[in-house]
Amino acid sequence: MTETAQTEQFDVATYMQTLGRQARVAARALSRAETGARNTALHAIADAILASREVLKSENRKDMDAGRKHGLDAALLDRLELTDARIDAMAEGLHQVAALPDPVGAISDLDYRPSGIQVGRMRVPLGVIGIIYESRPNVTADAAALCLKAGNACILRGGSEALHANQAIARCIEQGLEKAGLPVTAVQVVATTDRAAVGELLRLEGSVDVIVPRGGKGLIERVMQESRIPVIKHLHGVCHTYIDDQADIDKAVKVAFNAKTQRYGTCNTMETLLVADGIAGRVLPVLGKMYQDEGVELRGCEKTCQILPGIKPATEADWDEEYLAPVLSIRVVHDMDAAMDHIDRYGSQHTDVIVTENVTRARRFLREVDSSSVMVNASSRFADGFEYGLGAEIGISTDKLHARGPVGLEGLTTLKFIVLGDGHIRT
Amino acid sequence: MTETAQTEQFDVATYMQTLGRQARVAARALSRAETGARNTALHAIADAILASREVLKSENRKDMDAGRKHGLDAALLDRLELTDARIDAMAEGLHQVAALPDPVGAISDLDYRPSGIQVGRMRVPLGVIGIIYESRPNVTADAAALCLKAGNACILRGGSEALHANQAIARCIEQGLEKAGLPVTAVQVVATTDRAAVGELLRLEGSVDVIVPRGGKGLIERVMQESRIPVIKHLHGVCHTYIDDQADIDKAVKVAFNAKTQRYGTCNTMETLLVADGIAGRVLPVLGKMYQDEGVELRGCEKTCQILPGIKPATEADWDEEYLAPVLSIRVVHDMDAAMDHIDRYGSQHTDVIVTENVTRARRFLREVDSSSVMVNASSRFADGFEYGLGAEIGISTDKLHARGPVGLEGLTTLKFIVLGDGHIRT
Repeated sequence: MTETAQTEQFDVATYMQTLGRQARVAARALSRAETGARNTALHAIADAILASREVLKSENRKDMDAGRKHGLDAALLDRLELTDARIDAMAEGLHQVAALPDPVGAISDLDYRPSGIQVGRMRVPLGVIGIIYESRPNVTADAAALCLKAGNACILRGGSEALHANQAIARCIEQGLEKAGLPVTAVQVVATTDRAAVGELLRLEGSVDVIVPRGGKGLIERVMQESRIPVIKHLHGVCHTYIDDQADIDKAVKVAFNAKTQRYGTCNTMETLLVADGIAGRVLPVLGKMYQDEGVELRGCEKTCQILPGIKPATEADWDEEYLAPVLSIRVVHDMDAAMDHIDRYGSQHTDVIVTENVTRARRFLREVDSSSVMVNASSRFADGFEYGLGAEIGISTDKLHARGPVGLEGLTTLKFIVLGDGHIRT
Repeated sequence: MTETAQTEQFDVATYMQTLGRQARVAARALSRAETGARNTALHAIADAILASREVLKSENRKDMDAGRKHGLDAALLDRLELTDARIDAMAEGLHQVAALPDPVGAISDLDYRPSGIQVGRMRVPLGVIGIIYESRPNVTADAAALCLKAGNACILRGGSEALHANQAIARCIEQGLEKAGLPVTAVQVVATTDRAAVGELLRLEGSVDVIVPRGGKGLIERVMQESRIPVIKHLHGVCHTYIDDQADIDKAVKVAFNAKTQRYGTCNTMETLLVADGIAGRVLPVLGKMYQDEGVELRGCEKTCQILPGIKPATEADWDEEYLAPVLSIRVVHDMDAAMDHIDRYGSQHTDVIVTENVTRARRFLREVDSSSVMVNASSRFADGFEYGLGAEIGISTDKLHARGPVGLEGLTTLKFIVLGDGHIRT
């Protein structure tokens, strides 16, 4: 591939179409491959990554040097770097995915029907998955592992700033596939930095079954605009915690503090705190001080500003904002219904939490809040594939169709119907 | 609505946006409505339909008269007609949907995680469903019933040729909703024949969660082109039956005859028969005569034409064709692998069948054929929501994401994660 990508008359459309055709062929072989072969490949890729440690680091240094030259900021350079610990983690992640139960081929609900036929469902791979991601080269190994385990071929388009490391990881993946007797085109890492490659990938509707964009809003919006292929996407996370007037104050303080401050840049971090009028005077002074000691900027509604004098007033725009930063908007609401109205209007259907001791309210909140994760008395930071026991995640979906919330192996498969008869006909 | 639709400065965009906003509000109420309320509405709609029998018939006569005047063909006029039997069937269908188990709110897989939280999934409505369909007015009641049962609001856009009957059915639906204390805007039947209404519906991405087009290829392709909203669609059904050389000949003849002739115009009807070389000489003469006696035109590959002299040779285009008519293409293939290659190349991933007594081949065919229904020793005509025990179906999906194959109540819902804790935080 690297060779093709570097010829002088390089045609990105032809190149991507070739990847698409090869992926389609590989997908068919992969869907037939036994569990053992796919697991062997995953272990062998892990071995190859550890054996190529020095190559990975030297290729990564080329990316880092180029990144510094192009003035990438410190945060981006940090995400780009392949340290020894990160190389170990990649290998470990591959072994972990190999250890997960195989979703492919599982048959469920196989029942006899009145006509005499048996009808059931079989879990099968989606086919070919296109993944578009940015900077962190370890995503190349993680994404390949999940696709492979679920029996899918994949085309991976990483950030151009990580080209050298990604290509070095691609060689390790090829070695592992070869060792397991699987087609090396089962995982293809796009070998050009030509930005047109993304557009071409989005047009491969005959070859690619689903696109997973992992990146910032700009990328996701571009993919939504351009793609004719179904997309599993994560748009944004405006997550709420509602502290009910029947909340246990200690739990409320613990959960609301953790939901904001455990990590700022993640999509399941709380961005707006809603507090019932009847408890605001008792809970906000405690929480407000804790946030301020932690360096969190608070922006409050009128009532909040009365309870916490000196903080910045929130504007209408604050309720829509995904800060991804040490900033929190706070609103005092009349009751749970007002909280649910606020979430319905401003939320992004990602993760929303109620803190209450009242079981009737907990039951209503769980049923009525239309978000991919709805929680009672727990931090929104738990919305994560590992925490949910999915083993690993390819992303968190804010879509409603197909996969909702953290997407693990199951989200990379689909169900087909199987029918068994003995010469049965319809009358 | 009728009033709005008939004002002089009628603006279809504003009208459709109003329907969208109203549906969104109704969806929230509906998602909270108890099982009993939704079932009460379904029974009450059935009662209203039976009580309005004469109105429905006289409104339908207006459509029929207009249809005759506009030169609709006999088949279309037949589909358009509301007979007493069809009115009874509509009411009966509503009672049947009411009797189905309620999918909404069902919690599954609620397990404790090592962190101490409980994580499970709750089945919830999709929200607002837009359905676009043609001619048959009974679809109005059927589609409304399924959406309502699954807790969704819907916007129904029927064929303009059925406007009067559809509006009369809409009045019955409103009566039923009112009786159950549910918002009458939970089911809105578009009251204008303006063709721009479809385009406007496809643009309501803020209000509509999924579009279900039920109609011919032209409609589906238009929807795929224009819609920014996810679509559950049925594209086409090029279904195959493969008769293996280890097939039981009696079963093969029975299944292959039924798959073609039980009904010609349905998507699960066989369009291409594949026969293993080793059995073709014994099975094709019997089957060929049966098809010809039934008036089915046969188009064969070279070998088929040798076995059945006088039939028309098949061209390359025949293998791609969904005849929906008494026409069948027949190809003799070397073995099951060749049959699966043919299906992979020409099939539409709808329903494909193997007839064999060999369990190893059956097992491989089930696993490796990538279609929404894969069958062993049964007629492809079984690919149907009722036959599969789904209770009813809104259509058959040839997509891979979300719903694949017959789409029943489950396909009109989605799963969200629920998390229960006791002040748990992430560390």
